[in-house]
Amino acid sequence: MSPRKGNLMAVRDDIKVIDATIRDGGLCNNFAFSDEFVKELYKTNIKSGVDYMEFGYKASKNLFRESDFGKWKFCNEEDIRAIVGDNISDMKLCVMADVGRCDFKTDFLPKSESVIDMVRVACYIHQMPAAIEMIEYLHDLGYETTCNIMAISQVGLEQVEQALEMLGGSSVDVIYLVDSYGSLYPENASALAEVYLAIAEKYGKLVGFHAHNNQNLAFANTIETLSYGVSYLDATAMGMGRGAGNCAMELLLGFLKNPKYNLYSLLTFIENYMLPLKEQGVVWGYDLQYMFTGQLNRHPREAMEFTAQKRNDYCEFYKSLLDNF
Amino acid sequence: MSPRKGNLMAVRDDIKVIDATIRDGGLCNNFAFSDEFVKELYKTNIKSGVDYMEFGYKASKNLFRESDFGKWKFCNEEDIRAIVGDNISDMKLCVMADVGRCDFKTDFLPKSESVIDMVRVACYIHQMPAAIEMIEYLHDLGYETTCNIMAISQVGLEQVEQALEMLGGSSVDVIYLVDSYGSLYPENASALAEVYLAIAEKYGKLVGFHAHNNQNLAFANTIETLSYGVSYLDATAMGMGRGAGNCAMELLLGFLKNPKYNLYSLLTFIENYMLPLKEQGVVWGYDLQYMFTGQLNRHPREAMEFTAQKRNDYCEFYKSLLDNF
Repeated sequence: MSPRKGNLMAVRDDIKVIDATIRDGGLCNNFAFSDEFVKELYKTNIKSGVDYMEFGYKASKNLFRESDFGKWKFCNEEDIRAIVGDNISDMKLCVMADVGRCDFKTDFLPKSESVIDMVRVACYIHQMPAAIEMIEYLHDLGYETTCNIMAISQVGLEQVEQALEMLGGSSVDVIYLVDSYGSLYPENASALAEVYLAIAEKYGKLVGFHAHNNQNLAFANTIETLSYGVSYLDATAMGMGRGAGNCAMELLLGFLKNPKYNLYSLLTFIENYMLPLKEQGVVWGYDLQYMFTGQLNRHPREAMEFTAQKRNDYCEFYKSLLDNF
Repeated sequence: MSPRKGNLMAVRDDIKVIDATIRDGGLCNNFAFSDEFVKELYKTNIKSGVDYMEFGYKASKNLFRESDFGKWKFCNEEDIRAIVGDNISDMKLCVMADVGRCDFKTDFLPKSESVIDMVRVACYIHQMPAAIEMIEYLHDLGYETTCNIMAISQVGLEQVEQALEMLGGSSVDVIYLVDSYGSLYPENASALAEVYLAIAEKYGKLVGFHAHNNQNLAFANTIETLSYGVSYLDATAMGMGRGAGNCAMELLLGFLKNPKYNLYSLLTFIENYMLPLKEQGVVWGYDLQYMFTGQLNRHPREAMEFTAQKRNDYCEFYKSLLDNF
């Protein structure tokens, strides 16, 4: 029997689509989205059937100066409410908080006073105890929580399993498989997803997937892991996100068979808001420099620098990466 | 036991990489490549470890006027020889011939007099008898042959199996699974590949895969079908090909673990020859209009027209496609 869940024709009711455009896309423009952009995206997501919209980061104001970034780096309660009011829609709202780069004990209101529904705790694998401390604190405040363990492609399977067991014993609701470097192929993304799912199911947790498009595999890996039982799926309008970007929302919504999801509003949003961003010179998406770092399973920082410098001497760049392996 | 063959670390000696840049890419620029371009690509492919290079079509000069197209629409023997001499390299050469649009009985020399090694016979499924007639003729002339059954995503499984059985009884060497509309997902591409492989192996034939990138899945589908045993893999420099294009050679060569394949020469070729093509306004590659036709499993002709008109009213276009379903 196939270990896949459901099939290409059917609806999987457990699926949740998370729009991460402002959060991961914000890394491309320093979070400088206009209120109009964010408000239109909010309305678009509701009409498209999106389940969660991520507004940005809850970053520490002690570590980052507010004047250096757009407001979605900090996601003040009043800034979110200026967009969504009391969010009377069925769509839930979330923010991301990085372990070690947020002041979670001072910056989160009790859930009963906040319009935020879910907090996504992002960490590296060596930060599991700190992540779990945050998760418990935020859970006690009343929030849904996820744990997004980043850069998983550089971690041995034994460590991954230990981290998953630790999360199994925590209050976390969703455990995310995060392909930070865009280095996973569908074959190993789905194999890893099965490891996550086996442990998560044992503890009654759900599993999510966050892709990067370095090898043009963000959508492919998303639907492959989905087919094995992953249910929280991150995507962004036109794949906007750091470096090579993420899974494109339009590909994902066009793929999902649940009639609650539809493309029309998103297409209009893309025409009116995403194409102008591209024209203004905001850059993201698949290109060879990101392919290299994906193939080599490493952080895209050099590729981002290559992009910023508008270089196209791919061969020299590739050689320099191999020189610094 | 997994039905996959090999694993992500190992070499599969049965793999053959086919560069189809001039042939499928020629559909983007009316085959108007300079001799310098083709010669540099030929040298690049040899250095990159590519196994076959496809030069173009052998189209009927009775149906198509030679003055209306670049020379690679016709692939005259002397034009190929002007590039490759006697092709003393280890790389083999191939051309494509469409059933019903070539004069195979007059336009092919005996293999002993030609520098061409393999002829790829492209057809639709209702043309199987005509395809097999061509295959037998070309096989008797001494060529390796493939049969590329196009638009397979619109054909029922029973018909596919009948066609594969017919080809099993023929002299064809390789049977191609062709995702003409870019509508296959990795999950059904690999399921179809298993159908092809089961019948092909029964008759001692090999299986190839030709992708289109309408849903950004060309590379994903190529490596997924490969993992189940497909061994002839089509790719093009920067994915150049009709509409959304094909599987990018740089992604494929970066993925394959056989040390005979390497990226360096291709990267230099891309810098010196592919980027200038893009700058000259030759257009190909993933965009939303192609995503729609892929999702809807239909011919990209309306999307190509949308592209040619430089439109970006995606929502209107999508509605018009649904109106004409």
